[in-house]
Amino acid sequence: MTLTDIPGTPETDAPQERLTSVGAALRVALDGPYAFQRASIRAAFPAEDLLRDPELDVEASRTWTTNRLLALTEQGFGSTGVPEDSDAVSDPLAAVLTFETLAHGDLSVTIKSGVQFGLFGGAVTNLGTAYHHDTFLPRIVTMDLLGCFAMTEIGHGSDVQSLETTITYVPETDEFDVHSPSEAARKAYIGNAARDGRMAVVFGQLVVDGTGHGVHAILVPIRDEAGDDLPGVTCGDHGHKGGLLGVDNGTLMFDHVRVPRSMLLDRYGGVDDEGRYDSPIESQNRRFFTMVGTLVRGRVCIASGGAITARRALSIATRYGLTRRQFPAPGRPDGVLLMDYLQHQRRLLPRLAKSYAIGYAQNELTKSLVHIQGGGEHTEDDQRDLEIRAAGLKAYATWFANEAVQEAREACGGAGYMSENQIVQMRQDVDIFATFEGDNTVLMQLVAKAQLMEFREAWKNLDRDEMRRATARMVGDTVIERTAANLVIERLVDAARRRPDKVALWDRGWHVMMFEDREKHALESLVMRMRAAQKDADAFEAMNAMGDHIQFVARAHVERTVLEAFIAGIDECEPGEAREVLERLCTLYALQSIHDDRGWFLEHNRITPDRSKAVGAQLDALCRELRPDALSIVEGLGIPKGWLHAAILED
Amino acid sequence: MTLTDIPGTPETDAPQERLTSVGAALRVALDGPYAFQRASIRAAFPAEDLLRDPELDVEASRTWTTNRLLALTEQGFGSTGVPEDSDAVSDPLAAVLTFETLAHGDLSVTIKSGVQFGLFGGAVTNLGTAYHHDTFLPRIVTMDLLGCFAMTEIGHGSDVQSLETTITYVPETDEFDVHSPSEAARKAYIGNAARDGRMAVVFGQLVVDGTGHGVHAILVPIRDEAGDDLPGVTCGDHGHKGGLLGVDNGTLMFDHVRVPRSMLLDRYGGVDDEGRYDSPIESQNRRFFTMVGTLVRGRVCIASGGAITARRALSIATRYGLTRRQFPAPGRPDGVLLMDYLQHQRRLLPRLAKSYAIGYAQNELTKSLVHIQGGGEHTEDDQRDLEIRAAGLKAYATWFANEAVQEAREACGGAGYMSENQIVQMRQDVDIFATFEGDNTVLMQLVAKAQLMEFREAWKNLDRDEMRRATARMVGDTVIERTAANLVIERLVDAARRRPDKVALWDRGWHVMMFEDREKHALESLVMRMRAAQKDADAFEAMNAMGDHIQFVARAHVERTVLEAFIAGIDECEPGEAREVLERLCTLYALQSIHDDRGWFLEHNRITPDRSKAVGAQLDALCRELRPDALSIVEGLGIPKGWLHAAILED
Repeated sequence: MTLTDIPGTPETDAPQERLTSVGAALRVALDGPYAFQRASIRAAFPAEDLLRDPELDVEASRTWTTNRLLALTEQGFGSTGVPEDSDAVSDPLAAVLTFETLAHGDLSVTIKSGVQFGLFGGAVTNLGTAYHHDTFLPRIVTMDLLGCFAMTEIGHGSDVQSLETTITYVPETDEFDVHSPSEAARKAYIGNAARDGRMAVVFGQLVVDGTGHGVHAILVPIRDEAGDDLPGVTCGDHGHKGGLLGVDNGTLMFDHVRVPRSMLLDRYGGVDDEGRYDSPIESQNRRFFTMVGTLVRGRVCIASGGAITARRALSIATRYGLTRRQFPAPGRPDGVLLMDYLQHQRRLLPRLAKSYAIGYAQNELTKSLVHIQGGGEHTEDDQRDLEIRAAGLKAYATWFANEAVQEAREACGGAGYMSENQIVQMRQDVDIFATFEGDNTVLMQLVAKAQLMEFREAWKNLDRDEMRRATARMVGDTVIERTAANLVIERLVDAARRRPDKVALWDRGWHVMMFEDREKHALESLVMRMRAAQKDADAFEAMNAMGDHIQFVARAHVERTVLEAFIAGIDECEPGEAREVLERLCTLYALQSIHDDRGWFLEHNRITPDRSKAVGAQLDALCRELRPDALSIVEGLGIPKGWLHAAILED
Repeated sequence: MTLTDIPGTPETDAPQERLTSVGAALRVALDGPYAFQRASIRAAFPAEDLLRDPELDVEASRTWTTNRLLALTEQGFGSTGVPEDSDAVSDPLAAVLTFETLAHGDLSVTIKSGVQFGLFGGAVTNLGTAYHHDTFLPRIVTMDLLGCFAMTEIGHGSDVQSLETTITYVPETDEFDVHSPSEAARKAYIGNAARDGRMAVVFGQLVVDGTGHGVHAILVPIRDEAGDDLPGVTCGDHGHKGGLLGVDNGTLMFDHVRVPRSMLLDRYGGVDDEGRYDSPIESQNRRFFTMVGTLVRGRVCIASGGAITARRALSIATRYGLTRRQFPAPGRPDGVLLMDYLQHQRRLLPRLAKSYAIGYAQNELTKSLVHIQGGGEHTEDDQRDLEIRAAGLKAYATWFANEAVQEAREACGGAGYMSENQIVQMRQDVDIFATFEGDNTVLMQLVAKAQLMEFREAWKNLDRDEMRRATARMVGDTVIERTAANLVIERLVDAARRRPDKVALWDRGWHVMMFEDREKHALESLVMRMRAAQKDADAFEAMNAMGDHIQFVARAHVERTVLEAFIAGIDECEPGEAREVLERLCTLYALQSIHDDRGWFLEHNRITPDRSKAVGAQLDALCRELRPDALSIVEGLGIPKGWLHAAILED
């Protein structure tokens, strides 16, 4: 089943959720281009049995998780988006929306689905050819064949090109020999490896006739029907973890395991009948990045899973803050509603605003993924751009998820710590989102590197002054290439730039200008530093010194694209109350970011001390203005109250 | 057994830990006035069976925790510090050092010890009289009588004066009637309430002959020998939590439960033989604060427990960073040691520095507690001062613990998420430290309030200008009353103040001056705002607007006292390599704080943009300078490597 099968008028026995009119409008607005699909899924999703009993131990959690995913798959909510054989087409939109929906429940189920359908199924789909599709996909989509995505090695966390596992062609038997030559080559943290997996997509160095061809992937059976390790394979178990207890992460070691030649996923490189290496892509480096690039969907999904988790936790904390009273105060003998404390507003409302911002960015990213992976016309640059945006949003959204969930926990006080209120499980599960599918710090390096690449050519033969001019020109022209709502924003910025210190703090053009200036200046100065560093004797130490600067450039870039997506999203919304709330949320998002970075803005004379103070005061004012809409804002996030299952919210 | 029984030359079978010479010297320096006691405990502490199997479910965790605490108690490491009857004296130093030691292991055991000996035993000791001491303490210190500290009510988290539970004197039978009049009066989150407790110290409103006398505490048996609820008592179970699974937190409801008059803990107020209320303290408000004030030791202990947890996590992450290699780089073909990445240094070293700073502040706080609770001469002001410092350090240290443990988790990547590496359990357990024993935000309000109290009298009849002058004078004279190393610091600051923008970034006087200016100015402007707000119609909203400002004042104050404690601690250290490391760590602590608040310093023209940028660069330089001492710095934190039990550190 794919999402397009979902009927137009959702039929459901579930009681209709009653929303405020503004809440309903905000929900449609934030659901954006996928409002219809998302509303349909909300109505059709089997939301009973959504959450796992936190008391289950590791073994029981794994069993529950596998069974739950199986049940969801049977109801059409598991393998959605994975083609069933070589004739079917992959449906990236269905895949992303299904993952997002699963993130409304137990995250072990969500991640298990990601391992099985996204990573394992995705690798077979994207790196394999017709034989692999026809042979394995039918059993993958039904979960008859559970599998692993064995990329990470214990000695090579984020450094995939240095993998040590070898995949050596053996002409005598027309087989491949898969081998882990050292302890550092042990595959680690692999989902489905500890218990359920029967097969693994193993990444390693392909060697043909003594020549290395770089990292490739091969299918290797790892367990027999009874669940015992196959000869030469050693599966290990990571056991108890900080969260995601339902996912059976484990290790894999291979001792010269032989598999037929046909098991190599050979879309981008394989061994022909004459035993010669053959690839449609000449450059080993380009081949590697092409292969890895097909896996971009996983990062889009994790970004969305993180964002949804933040929404769930913020929904619980905000709804609780609207019912819970604390200390009595003058004029409030029954105690003050938590949400009426300005400090509580400052904790929750800017994070709700950021949730909206990320939601709009996620919509843009999904559109781009659907276009590219759905068969739309696109260039290599488009693909590269998608990868960079996915990397950036994955890091940005999952870091946000961690801190937002923690803030929500603390905003609920002691109650937030009780498992019956769900926030602590989210916190435990989402923690690792910052590390897996690409460590966030490393992903941000990729984002910054992409910005820098634009300059490489321009540098070569310029002196310092020429370069400075060229840099400024390039940053202006090409790097700040708007990702959304180009013309709308252009006009706003032009107006603000004329008198930046006079325009109102809620002037949208000023926000964009500040975000752009931050990105431009940070990038420009990084370029200058890197050029200067080229003369350094120790190239590593020279680069090492710029670590924070690189992260800052990446974040400034991501935040600018997120703000632009928010602005473009608002532009799609009909005028009315909901749109006014969105405008305020967008201002809150922008000003909070400027406020958080006011050290930088002040250091670089981008803002006066007085104006910086005024931004802080404006945040207070905005929170007060948005306070009456708190419930609508939460409703707009799209988590049905009945799915939250927090005991503190029960009437 | 008390600590003074520990022999001078520790006998132990444990292999002696081999430390670097600088590490050993740092350890002695940071152990400070308690170096001998801490070394003795390290040698004598039964460190086997230190950690709980994370796989244990709630019931098994509780059983393990109770048994472990019982075993420790039998070995002299549980009830230390609680007097055994009315003739024995309480030993606050032993209590604090024992708690600190227990925090090196499973935190459920630590908190369970806090509930039983600190809270339950502490309330009987401090609020009770000879009858209670002789009757109950002997069974409390042996854990024959397990009990609860039933203060918090579900409707009144941080607002103890509004408790609804009633303790009504019944002259007819010479009993008290303990009653929960509403659902909001339910005692919640109470340790030992769900399973183990047989008796509770219940806080409620004392009513005698129809007159309320404010909050008092009374002993109420809650379960029979078999563990069944006694008539009129309803015990509930919070079940699974975000951490501390070994502590049986639960709820208590009382339906007109009768207990003999003698059960009232009547040191500060009770009912005499004629049935009349009688108290040595006239004012109800002052009585309340006197009673609550005796519980200050709990906050000192929690601060220390949080700080030790941060040390454990940072020790694991730093030691791992000294063995783990990542991407190869020019000149480093085997990969770069994590700890050689500047970004990794910037993650860990400032937090190690903050651990030292908090350690020295904790030593000062302990000294003050030991003096006051150990029978030293002191005024009411000294007691009040102790309470405020305990509140501030508790909030500061436990917030730090949460973020430092999380940073350590991320610094270990995927490995950090595996329970075998211990960090995730710490993270889960320490989370609630920010909320219990006083919600951190509320505690910081207390700290700020204490600063403000100084002004109240001075305000009354002054106009705006007079007040501004008076404020400035008072802030200068009395509020910035140095907590440590008065003369040393005075001299340093005087020198720096002459040319604040010229002195070196590592000038200690400049650091203190910046910390003082931040505190003074924030307090001054808060005073002005509060005075202006007195005219506001809505007093609540007027105060509400200052929430963040109040928190800032409190933090600025706490950080200044922490810095001063660090400086005083260094002053005690012999010149040499260790002292040089301490000086650098102190500079790192100070500059990191200035850097984090650079937005404020720039907004208030306390620093120029160029100097602010230079502080950032100086942090990089300091990290590089301290990098070679990373191992010694970790050793100085005093956690024996063998106690860490992280799989990633095993050779």
